[in-house]
Parts: sequence; C-alpha cells; structure tokens
Amino acid sequence: MDIPKDHPRYGSLATRERLAEFVRKGLMTPTGLVAHGRGEAFDYLMGERTTPAALNAEKAAAAYLLDAKRPVICVNGNAAALDAKRLIELAVATGAKTEVNIFHRSEERMALLIDYMRECGAKDILGENPDSRIPGLSSDRALCTGDGIFSSDVILVPIEDGDRAEALVRMKKIVIAIDLNPLSRTSRMATVSITDEMSRALANMINFVTELRNNKKEVKDIISRFSNAGNRKAAVEDIREYLRSAMRDGESND
Amino acid sequence: MDIPKDHPRYGSLATRERLAEFVRKGLMTPTGLVAHGRGEAFDYLMGERTTPAALNAEKAAAAYLLDAKRPVICVNGNAAALDAKRLIELAVATGAKTEVNIFHRSEERMALLIDYMRECGAKDILGENPDSRIPGLSSDRALCTGDGIFSSDVILVPIEDGDRAEALVRMKKIVIAIDLNPLSRTSRMATVSITDEMSRALANMINFVTELRNNKKEVKDIISRFSNAGNRKAAVEDIREYLRSAMRDGESND
Repeated sequence: MDIPKDHPRYGSLATRERLAEFVRKGLMTPTGLVAHGRGEAFDYLMGERTTPAALNAEKAAAAYLLDAKRPVICVNGNAAALDAKRLIELAVATGAKTEVNIFHRSEERMALLIDYMRECGAKDILGENPDSRIPGLSSDRALCTGDGIFSSDVILVPIEDGDRAEALVRMKKIVIAIDLNPLSRTSRMATVSITDEMSRALANMINFVTELRNNKKEVKDIISRFSNAGNRKAAVEDIREYLRSAMRDGESND
Repeated sequence: MDIPKDHPRYGSLATRERLAEFVRKGLMTPTGLVAHGRGEAFDYLMGERTTPAALNAEKAAAAYLLDAKRPVICVNGNAAALDAKRLIELAVATGAKTEVNIFHRSEERMALLIDYMRECGAKDILGENPDSRIPGLSSDRALCTGDGIFSSDVILVPIEDGDRAEALVRMKKIVIAIDLNPLSRTSRMATVSITDEMSRALANMINFVTELRNNKKEVKDIISRFSNAGNRKAAVEDIREYLRSAMRDGESND
C-alpha cells in the first residue's frame, strides 16, 4: 500500500505495513496487529524513546541472562516480525536457547516462524516438537519443549500474553518481560519488566551483555540492587509526566 | 480462531477477532487493526468506560448535529466494523448524510463497505462516485463527494486520520471527532473531541439527540457553553488519575 510520504507519522505507518506483510505471509495473526497497536500507544505516551527506568530494567535483564544456567528466549510472531536479528544476536551473546512459542498455535505457522528464524541466522531453534506443557494453562498455548522453556531458569518473553507470563512465574522462573504497558498483567507478574519498544530494548540489552560479560561481581550486584516495583512505578510516572507536559505544551508527537 | 474462554480478557480478544474477520473479508485494512489496538490502549487507560468529560463532549456533539444545516457522518472500515448499526441510527436521528471515506482507498473496498452499510440498513450512502477533493491532501484520501463531505457544515469523523481531520478544519467545518487518544492531532484539531470508544459514544449521542430534538434553545446553550480545550484537558487528567490509582492499588483491568 502507498503511504503518503508527506504524512507526519510516516515511520510508524511504515512499520505497520511491515507487520501487515507478516500477517499476509501467515507468520503473524491479524490480532497480533492489534497487540502491536496497543504497544504503539504506550510507546507514544513515553515519547517513543527508552526512558531511564527502561534502561535500568534492560541492565538488570542482561545481568539475569548472564547469571542464568538455562536461559531461554521466547519468540512469537510479533517478536520475529519486529526484530528477529536482534533476538538471535542476544541469544548468541548470552548462550540462550531460542524457542518459538505462539498464542494461536498452528503447525503451519510454527513451521513458517521456525523457517524464518533460521533464514535470519538462528541455529538450534526449539518449539516445533513440544513434549511438555506449562502447567495451569488450557489449550495449545501451554505447549513447550522440555529442553527449552520447561526447564529454563531465566526466560525472556517479548510481547507475552499475561496469562502465560503468570503461569511461567508460578513455575518459579525468572521472567523477563518486554511489554510497553507497565500496568499489564505480564509487566506486573514479571521479575524484570522492561517497558520499552522491543527492538530498542534488545539493542540496549546486547550492549549491557557485552559490557558485563566478564564482571561476575557486577552482575550479582546489579541483580541484588534491582527493584522491579520501583522501576515499574517510575515507568508509570514517566507516562503521567508525558501527559501533563503534552497538555501544557498543547502539542504531541502525533 | 479459538480464544480460551477462561482468558481474563476474553471480551477484548473477541472484538479483535471480529475486526480480524473484517480484514479477511476485505472491508478493513490490516493496518486498521493496529489503529484499533492504539485505541484499545487508551480505552484501557480510562477504565473502559465513558468518562464525565466524554459524556459532556457527546452532548455537545449531539447539539452541533441537531443545529447543522448539512450534517455528514463519515464511515471508514474500522467504524463500520465496530458499529455500523449505530452510525446509521445516528444519521437517521439527525438527518445526516452518510459518506464512506477511507484512508487506503480502493474501488473494491469502497464497494464492499457501501454494500455492507446498505445491508445494515443505510439508505443513500455516499462516497462511491467522488467528484470533489478535500484541499491540501495528497493522494486518494482527498477524494469526497460535493453533496456530502465537501459541502457539509458539521461532520462527524469516527477514528479519523489526523492529517485529514486537520484538512477538514481548514475548510471551516465543525469537526466532531471520536478518537480514544485525547492527544492525537485529530483530537487537538477537532471542534468537539470525543475521547470514548465509538460504540459507547454513538449510543450516548443517540440518547442526547432524542432528548434535545425539540429544544432549540437548549441546543444553542449547550454549544455556547462547551469548551473543547477544557474538556480535552479533563480527558487527559482522567488517564493520569487512572495510572496513579492503578499503581497505588497494584492492580489493573488487564
């Protein structure tokens, strides 16, 4: 489709078109586009930038991943569409396994996503042959692999459903969520709630992993200092402040 | 698709599926789903209810429509999918014309939408044969009819693009916007900004039209008393207060 180049939100509209293309190819469900729109609104309310609170959470997330014994990075349609390359880069940097895990599971879409991730450079991508279930979830969204999600100790879930995030926490895992809504159940349940756009969040996490890789003491310190409650509160305050100043200035980024 | 009935956001997910169905049938573009998601996020931040500020704007909107000489109600894919019946009901109640007007115009989608509106009971629906252009807009999104949008004095635009809302204001029209983002360009540009979910907003407007129909003096009073700036400010404050109390309670509606 043609987006008029003179449209003030050309960039955001172009990303939407890219995700729509993933829907047309069968890699994302149409309702994934609605979820993306929800995220867009929250991103807009944070000025479309990484806030100090988000950066702090990204540093803690990097530390948890480096400290993990069995780290896993979950990939769904939205995450793959937004930035498959950085998901893979973070997995390589942290030695994490990657598992495709989708809300509306179909074997066809699983295969398409796994193929896509491989094309983007992923090795050993899990999810196609699930042999375990996340306890307490109905339907196919419980399916996972014993080698991956089921036995993980630290799990990164970008753009996760709240129900499943909660089930993972009940399994006593360290759950790192990337979710632009700081009030969502996913954000409230997670051990580390990253309130940031996924691609920006991954770029920052990759930098932190490089920086902290050989500093075990600093990794432990970051983990013990991190307060998710305080951090999430700061994220909400950032939105409140954005709303206040947008009304005062009579302007916005739309 | 199967949405697990035990999912806490079943209602919202079911609406998403309904809109996705409109995309599959070609009545809505995939990117319309993203726009819906953005709206969902703002609705969530207002507690998914009509706020007092929104109700006030809906009353003013009803008064403007009753006071109009050439009222027009715009219909796009999202609006038709969300609640075609109430759009038609409001048009009948106010004697407004209805014109289909879409951002990503294709003759096929225009025909599908016009057929759908007719199936839902619309008479004399405009838009299929545009003979005019909204000045200052590039591309097909400028197309409109001389009998409808072009010569209207009061125009209701549910879920409108900011660029086009601004162009309509430059044409000196009274623009009534239904847009869940009180900071969007559409909301900032409109004469009356209704920050509410479309279907709820229409139901309230229909009630106000019935109530005010035979009271010309009250209609004039409502119009002269209404302050869109003050009202929009209240809508933003409602969101700020929701965020504050959600953090305090440690809960949310997700």
